[in-house]
Amino acid sequence: MAAGDLDRVMHLLAKLPGLGPRSARRAMLHLMQKREALMVPLADALAAAARSIRTCSTCGNFDTTDPCAICQDPRRDPSLICVVEDVGDVWALERAAAFKGRYHVIGGVLSALDGVGPEDLKVDGLVTRAAMPEVTEVILAMNATVDGQTTAHYIADRLAGTGVAVSRLAHGVPVGGELDFLDDGTLTQALKARHSV
Amino acid sequence: MAAGDLDRVMHLLAKLPGLGPRSARRAMLHLMQKREALMVPLADALAAAARSIRTCSTCGNFDTTDPCAICQDPRRDPSLICVVEDVGDVWALERAAAFKGRYHVIGGVLSALDGVGPEDLKVDGLVTRAAMPEVTEVILAMNATVDGQTTAHYIADRLAGTGVAVSRLAHGVPVGGELDFLDDGTLTQALKARHSV
Repeated sequence: MAAGDLDRVMHLLAKLPGLGPRSARRAMLHLMQKREALMVPLADALAAAARSIRTCSTCGNFDTTDPCAICQDPRRDPSLICVVEDVGDVWALERAAAFKGRYHVIGGVLSALDGVGPEDLKVDGLVTRAAMPEVTEVILAMNATVDGQTTAHYIADRLAGTGVAVSRLAHGVPVGGELDFLDDGTLTQALKARHSV
Repeated sequence: MAAGDLDRVMHLLAKLPGLGPRSARRAMLHLMQKREALMVPLADALAAAARSIRTCSTCGNFDTTDPCAICQDPRRDPSLICVVEDVGDVWALERAAAFKGRYHVIGGVLSALDGVGPEDLKVDGLVTRAAMPEVTEVILAMNATVDGQTTAHYIADRLAGTGVAVSRLAHGVPVGGELDFLDDGTLTQALKARHSV
């Protein structure tokens, strides 16, 4: 039977997204079978990461330096700021390697149900950054959900006074997507935004 | 973007059963957002568990003591030994709380394909234990797979000289199971092993 230390690891593993009590137990068994090859390195790597991770004070990204590697990189275009909900979205855009500007992580979306108001999001910092002379465009890359779009509207309003250009991601048919499986909203948007070939 | 420490954690998390690269990334983001509440405690708990876990030299179970809590427990019946493939099976039987004897973990199954031979399993220790005067019955609780049943046959042969009674788990309809969804093998076994009501 599992003793105190094992129970504690399983209890914590079960809190990770994608793992429940059952899969946490399987993960624990796997860890115990590979104590030297997996359990000890994972404990060390987690401790090292917990020590070294910083939140970038400029953009809100996670990195081991502050400012983060993206904010420090002189090859990134300082005139473009892409606003995202959280750090996972930064990673997604970086994987696509489609954006060469800088980011701003606002840390969530406005949500009356969850009690998230404007004061809970890092919008003030964004307005300050957007007012800097080198910034010409802010791209709102919130998720295409009701809360995400509400938040995008709110941010666009807040940026109105800065004179910066504000844009948002295009809606449309996903690359590789089949029309038959798309929802009506996406099809309507894709039709509206059609362009000549 | 993820730096060295973060990459290392994600790489190791992705090796856990049930987690792939994508869910490891989600888990990493979650850990970073809950650094103090989850990441640091998980690192500590893993390190503590890695230090304290022992393999029971009697039965092969994992515990923080050797002999394990089950082998040490005077309330467990010493005349019954339940033979299982791995520690996960001990946990499953303990959760069911249906067995009051002791265990023997042989650490796998015979498998020609995977190159697992009798010398890779802890059968010698089982034969020694079964020959002890207090032991009257050995229950073979291998999985109902071809390899599991081959292994059970082999162990039954090895135990033949000890004079101990050897039994195996009953096959039949799982509790709550519907006949329509059961395979032919299970139905045949359940019919053969029918008993009067």
